[in-house]
Amino acid sequence: MEKIKIVVAGPRGRMGREAVKLVHETGEFELVAALDRKHGGMLVKDIEGLPAIDAPVYSDIEECLSLVRADVLIDLTTPEVGMKHTVAALNHGVRPVVGTTGFSKEDIQELEALTAEKDLGCIIAPNFAVGAILMMKFSQMAAKYFPDVEIIEMHHDQKLDAPSGTAVKTADLIMETRTKKTQGHPSEKETLAGARGANIDGMRIHSVRLPGLVAHQQVMFGSDGQMLTLRHDSFNRASFMSGVKLAVENVMKMNVLVYGLENILE
Amino acid sequence: MEKIKIVVAGPRGRMGREAVKLVHETGEFELVAALDRKHGGMLVKDIEGLPAIDAPVYSDIEECLSLVRADVLIDLTTPEVGMKHTVAALNHGVRPVVGTTGFSKEDIQELEALTAEKDLGCIIAPNFAVGAILMMKFSQMAAKYFPDVEIIEMHHDQKLDAPSGTAVKTADLIMETRTKKTQGHPSEKETLAGARGANIDGMRIHSVRLPGLVAHQQVMFGSDGQMLTLRHDSFNRASFMSGVKLAVENVMKMNVLVYGLENILE
Amino acid sequence: MEKIKIVVAGPRGRMGREAVKLVHETGEFELVAALDRKHGGMLVKDIEGLPAIDAPVYSDIEECLSLVRADVLIDLTTPEVGMKHTVAALNHGVRPVVGTTGFSKEDIQELEALTAEKDLGCIIAPNFAVGAILMMKFSQMAAKYFPDVEIIEMHHDQKLDAPSGTAVKTADLIMETRTKKTQGHPSEKETLAGARGANIDGMRIHSVRLPGLVAHQQVMFGSDGQMLTLRHDSFNRASFMSGVKLAVENVMKMNVLVYGLENILE
Amino acid sequence: MEKIKIVVAGPRGRMGREAVKLVHETGEFELVAALDRKHGGMLVKDIEGLPAIDAPVYSDIEECLSLVRADVLIDLTTPEVGMKHTVAALNHGVRPVVGTTGFSKEDIQELEALTAEKDLGCIIAPNFAVGAILMMKFSQMAAKYFPDVEIIEMHHDQKLDAPSGTAVKTADLIMETRTKKTQGHPSEKETLAGARGANIDGMRIHSVRLPGLVAHQQVMFGSDGQMLTLRHDSFNRASFMSGVKLAVENVMKMNVLVYGLENILE
Repeated sequence: MEKIKIVVAGPRGRMGREAVKLVHETGEFELVAALDRKHGGMLVKDIEGLPAIDAPVYSDIEECLSLVRADVLIDLTTPEVGMKHTVAALNHGVRPVVGTTGFSKEDIQELEALTAEKDLGCIIAPNFAVGAILMMKFSQMAAKYFPDVEIIEMHHDQKLDAPSGTAVKTADLIMETRTKKTQGHPSEKETLAGARGANIDGMRIHSVRLPGLVAHQQVMFGSDGQMLTLRHDSFNRASFMSGVKLAVENVMKMNVLVYGLENILE
Repeated sequence: MEKIKIVVAGPRGRMGREAVKLVHETGEFELVAALDRKHGGMLVKDIEGLPAIDAPVYSDIEECLSLVRADVLIDLTTPEVGMKHTVAALNHGVRPVVGTTGFSKEDIQELEALTAEKDLGCIIAPNFAVGAILMMKFSQMAAKYFPDVEIIEMHHDQKLDAPSGTAVKTADLIMETRTKKTQGHPSEKETLAGARGANIDGMRIHSVRLPGLVAHQQVMFGSDGQMLTLRHDSFNRASFMSGVKLAVENVMKMNVLVYGLENILE
Repeated sequence: MEKIKIVVAGPRGRMGREAVKLVHETGEFELVAALDRKHGGMLVKDIEGLPAIDAPVYSDIEECLSLVRADVLIDLTTPEVGMKHTVAALNHGVRPVVGTTGFSKEDIQELEALTAEKDLGCIIAPNFAVGAILMMKFSQMAAKYFPDVEIIEMHHDQKLDAPSGTAVKTADLIMETRTKKTQGHPSEKETLAGARGANIDGMRIHSVRLPGLVAHQQVMFGSDGQMLTLRHDSFNRASFMSGVKLAVENVMKMNVLVYGLENILE
Repeated sequence: MEKIKIVVAGPRGRMGREAVKLVHETGEFELVAALDRKHGGMLVKDIEGLPAIDAPVYSDIEECLSLVRADVLIDLTTPEVGMKHTVAALNHGVRPVVGTTGFSKEDIQELEALTAEKDLGCIIAPNFAVGAILMMKFSQMAAKYFPDVEIIEMHHDQKLDAPSGTAVKTADLIMETRTKKTQGHPSEKETLAGARGANIDGMRIHSVRLPGLVAHQQVMFGSDGQMLTLRHDSFNRASFMSGVKLAVENVMKMNVLVYGLENILE
């Protein structure tokens, strides 16, 4: 079987570096070029921190895709650059896998139209951590049967906001299936303010911040005589790579735009 | 809305007692009779340990269903009696919800045919713990993306067999979606026999037995930089009742036989 | 070896019933009488819910201790009755093990004096759950090295107050050894009020309330690259009995009053 | 207050690099020199991967301690080199903190004698992870009251041996306080070999191996109606540094040799 030929845009970023490594170490993938505005004309192996790959580096996507035959573009740059790259890729017959939370509704609609016109697959993913996405998906499914739910999210103590974006997103997804109720005893009272956590639609979210932690979340469902707990622990950035790999494999078989990795998980 | 009229067979057993209590405490349910070979002619409230309900007790199902108008039979007796009860219920136009692991393939096929002929719903459930069923279902879904999985099941120290039936069933379900592999390092070695647990298709199961525990299982999926954990804790028999309630509600809307509660969970 | 002869006061209460069962099932213990104001003159086996023991029941402690030779009184009544019983026991040369949170400082001082005068052991315990006491003791020890700590306590949703008494007591004990600090990032902010839990001396306590739960607490200590977690799960009232047993065994070897089971744990 | 002047031996190893960083970032510590057989004559800042510190590097300890005034030597080399370094340090009036599992009984006795002669403190530590040491210490204390214990240790799937050294050490410590018993039901049987884990003195150890994990252990104590769980998670090598810091602070106040960090934890 022929390998999937891949261009990585943004190879020096923290995600990009992991993506280059992933492509390099995956048997059925081949890195054919990188896009990096600062290192056009060099080879990947000449950029500090990247593996010893002879693939060329381009600073311009048009030049890159005109000269190099590619199947997939993995874009891990900024929303602005990413949008330009995604359009260019589709125009060159290359399928984009884009990691971003920054595209507007209009951006997405434009890309959907272009994807349809070109009859290509395209994946836009705000989150590549398959484990976290499954935790959210399963939480949404479980809430249909267990309307009593509390979320505990735990992060390192350098995190500024509480609760985390993932916890709020999980609660939003749960709201779509849960029969609304106010949890806890109707007469419960806090003798110390905040003990019962944040209230979101009658559910509770608790944010733990401790040095040493990375990013962890557990969703607890209680019911008569039982508890169901769904937990995701993210120990480091490598956790995103199984999602990137899955996206590349799937985008090759698709001819529509998909927003959110949860929509390609069965 | 009219209440669902229910007959409970086996009201003195541990599950049956909980079922009578459930029907009594659920607004949309009504206990219209109980079936108990030892207490025919009495009232439910006269049986020790049951709530103060005036419903009659019968020792014979034909007599019961001829005299009492019922919608659903909840059967929590033995496989032999349960089979006879289920057939009788279908013949009387009553929808059965049966908790048993003991029906043979032939029994099921016979009941399927009768259910179709009578155009009624019928649910046969080896396990009513919704949380445990979701844990198994989610494990099967997750294994598609995370082939590295270990199961830790934990029970009180009076349990005789290891691993538990639920752990083996979970592994069986996972096998259907997991890409088979032998986990752990190819050169790993046990300096104390058994440390790495039981090997089932390359996965590992560990059985913890401690006084104080009830019935607990966690399924752990590991992948680069992350872990997904699905856990179910069963603290007491009341945990089965949300499944019985769900089954009664669903059987009223169905006109086929369903085996296994997982098939009515979405 | 001779058995320890025990009188149980309050045998029909939830704790008392467990205590009678404990004495009955422990080889080196012997139930010689029970104290119950309503059933004087009966036998223990005649009281509903108690095991088949032929020991006499008295309604008055003076009568009881004059007629029966006992080593230890286990008192699980109310503070008022318990105080009277404890004094009477010491005057009769019987060592008291009293489960109560209700004795005043003056009560304790009076009992200390009497204990010294009689040269007997006496244990007053607000909490008999050895596991919970060890969790608190270890938390206090660990806080000396890990000043970043968050407490998550989890109870059934019928509990009215948050945080739990045990969580506050744990925090109080930790304060004695922890170098005071305000945890979390100095600029952290809650986008939903209460997310970061209750603040107690710069530590955080989170109270989870879910149906199905009983009484659980975990104390988490974070530090660079590591986390230490101490957790206690109480599944039912039987958890108190190992503490009662320990108290009885210890009180026989002591000749002072000890307040709090933590002081006899090494 | 004057800073504690520190020499680090072995600054390029994984532990040594973290130690240099620790000394650099701790206000009351000062790095006055490093010992590195390959880089004598250079400055610390010239060694790749080390912070920008102007302190000199020596290849010979005699030369180093003759020219530089130091309070403490942190030695993270090999047992052979470490022994030579420790003796030299004591002879120069410098207090050693040595991380090694490789010293023989004779080595320790020799160093004890020399430490006494010089009236200096000296700490030899096989393990600097304070959290792990506390988990072991607390396990030993808890086993006195809870003889039913199972250990679950969890590591990445590149680990070759099972169970881990820490799990075996924990079991050894528990054996000193636990009343020996064979756990589980006398008639329990494994339907899949290994399910019940490794048997060590009647206790059970289970070894989980999954990609993504680092080093984790939980010790579970079960008793009637309750469970006590002690857990340590090590996420990265930084977890050792709080132990090194503690050792340096303590060795300054001591005038004996201490083997094992548990002996300076209260």
